[in-house]
Amino acid sequence: MPSEELQYPTQPYSKVNRYDVREAKATYALKIIHELVNTSPILHVSFTVPDSPFPTMLPMIGQMGSFARPSSDIGDVLDLYLHGYVSSRLINLSRKSNSSSNGTEIEPSGLPITIGASHIDGLVLALTPNSHSYNYRSAVLFGHAEVVMDVEEKLMAMELITNSVVRDRYRHTRLPPNNAEMQSTSILRVKIASGSAKIRSGMPSDDKSDLEDAALLDRVWTGVVPVHYTLGDPMPGPYNKLETPAYLDEFVRESNQDAKDIAVEAATKAMKPKVKQGE
Amino acid sequence: MPSEELQYPTQPYSKVNRYDVREAKATYALKIIHELVNTSPILHVSFTVPDSPFPTMLPMIGQMGSFARPSSDIGDVLDLYLHGYVSSRLINLSRKSNSSSNGTEIEPSGLPITIGASHIDGLVLALTPNSHSYNYRSAVLFGHAEVVMDVEEKLMAMELITNSVVRDRYRHTRLPPNNAEMQSTSILRVKIASGSAKIRSGMPSDDKSDLEDAALLDRVWTGVVPVHYTLGDPMPGPYNKLETPAYLDEFVRESNQDAKDIAVEAATKAMKPKVKQGE
Repeated sequence: MPSEELQYPTQPYSKVNRYDVREAKATYALKIIHELVNTSPILHVSFTVPDSPFPTMLPMIGQMGSFARPSSDIGDVLDLYLHGYVSSRLINLSRKSNSSSNGTEIEPSGLPITIGASHIDGLVLALTPNSHSYNYRSAVLFGHAEVVMDVEEKLMAMELITNSVVRDRYRHTRLPPNNAEMQSTSILRVKIASGSAKIRSGMPSDDKSDLEDAALLDRVWTGVVPVHYTLGDPMPGPYNKLETPAYLDEFVRESNQDAKDIAVEAATKAMKPKVKQGE
Repeated sequence: MPSEELQYPTQPYSKVNRYDVREAKATYALKIIHELVNTSPILHVSFTVPDSPFPTMLPMIGQMGSFARPSSDIGDVLDLYLHGYVSSRLINLSRKSNSSSNGTEIEPSGLPITIGASHIDGLVLALTPNSHSYNYRSAVLFGHAEVVMDVEEKLMAMELITNSVVRDRYRHTRLPPNNAEMQSTSILRVKIASGSAKIRSGMPSDDKSDLEDAALLDRVWTGVVPVHYTLGDPMPGPYNKLETPAYLDEFVRESNQDAKDIAVEAATKAMKPKVKQGE
């Protein structure tokens, strides 16, 4: 990728392990990572809680954005805004992290959280079980979460997030959110410390010794089954009174075409090395 | 659900918060949780690492299974077998957890990890931004991970996992895995401590005051856009010599029909309460 693109600094906790990506490429480019997060309908959010050996994990909705610089590009330094049914546990922990001072100046305020966003692009069917895989694009972000208190910032995040469900949806709804809605909605702003992504694309890759086995090649089908999300025909709800609006029909049609193209493209992208070293 | 179904014990770390599920139902039924995990192409695995404020998160492939009782049902007590590019960090931590003894007899051996599996079934478009949502099914499991050393158990897990990519695929590949493959493949067995799931289905649910606003109902389309994965036509790889085999064609066709049905069914399922209390 071009050198002018911003990259997240690699930290011990964010560095993609060589063994993790035997067949994939790792990237730290903000643009790629932010796009993966923004196109994930569900993010997996993880954080540690006192008195539990297990990290908590919550499915949440989120979008990258900048309140300070609304015109920022997807590849710029951005915050992650999280919504969805924000758990009171997470909100409380974030509040506590905001207010507590632990004496060290270096530690940023906010609750340390990790966010995962993964897309599946294909089933990769190889000659051997071990070489089976998925074409996928997976991003992880690390950052500190704080509850958004500013009304304007909260509204901006609500607009970003609503429009991430369906493009241009926000201005077609009942606006502005009323007092009760503003009170009951919690938005978290995550200041990103680092991030990384792993991407596997292309056709199967098998060992040299298997590729030289003609009988095996005559017996096992190898290739990729593309995988993508499909949006079905919009189903009107019980109190709906309208025909499907044009912006929704268009969004469904374009999303489906894009999703299909991405999956097929991922399958045909050149992978290097194409052939693993014989073992 | 019937009372004879096994339920995971609710723990402080696993209990679904009331606020999390304003519009969804929570369940602790093994059958539902295990099915969500088994039908997720990617699992998000999280664990804490020494010297990092952030939990690690890795996308991995996994399947529920029982080596001791291979005939177990999906609703029985099962382990989770994890593969994918198992990070050396995770493997090393699991090994350490196996061998270290911390003096307390109560703590199970193995690395404490949390596993998330989420499915999107629909975009839920309501009258107000706040009532927008997704139809989704999301499971979380908590357990202790150890590296599988037994060869037979490892082979069983490899078969389970390969067949989770495409049904019945394992016996159509080059078997058995050779020594190098057995050495280079790490499988983790997660002994499950607890788990939970959240499920949101049905049509949008708006506040009473908005539903009484006739002008609003005449202006905003409300309903659900079903969402599901689609498998595209299998694309043969560069060294493939065969026509698409029948088991693969059949799997693609049936998966697509099932996925579509699930999404449409989720949209039409009754949600209670249908109308939120006016605020």
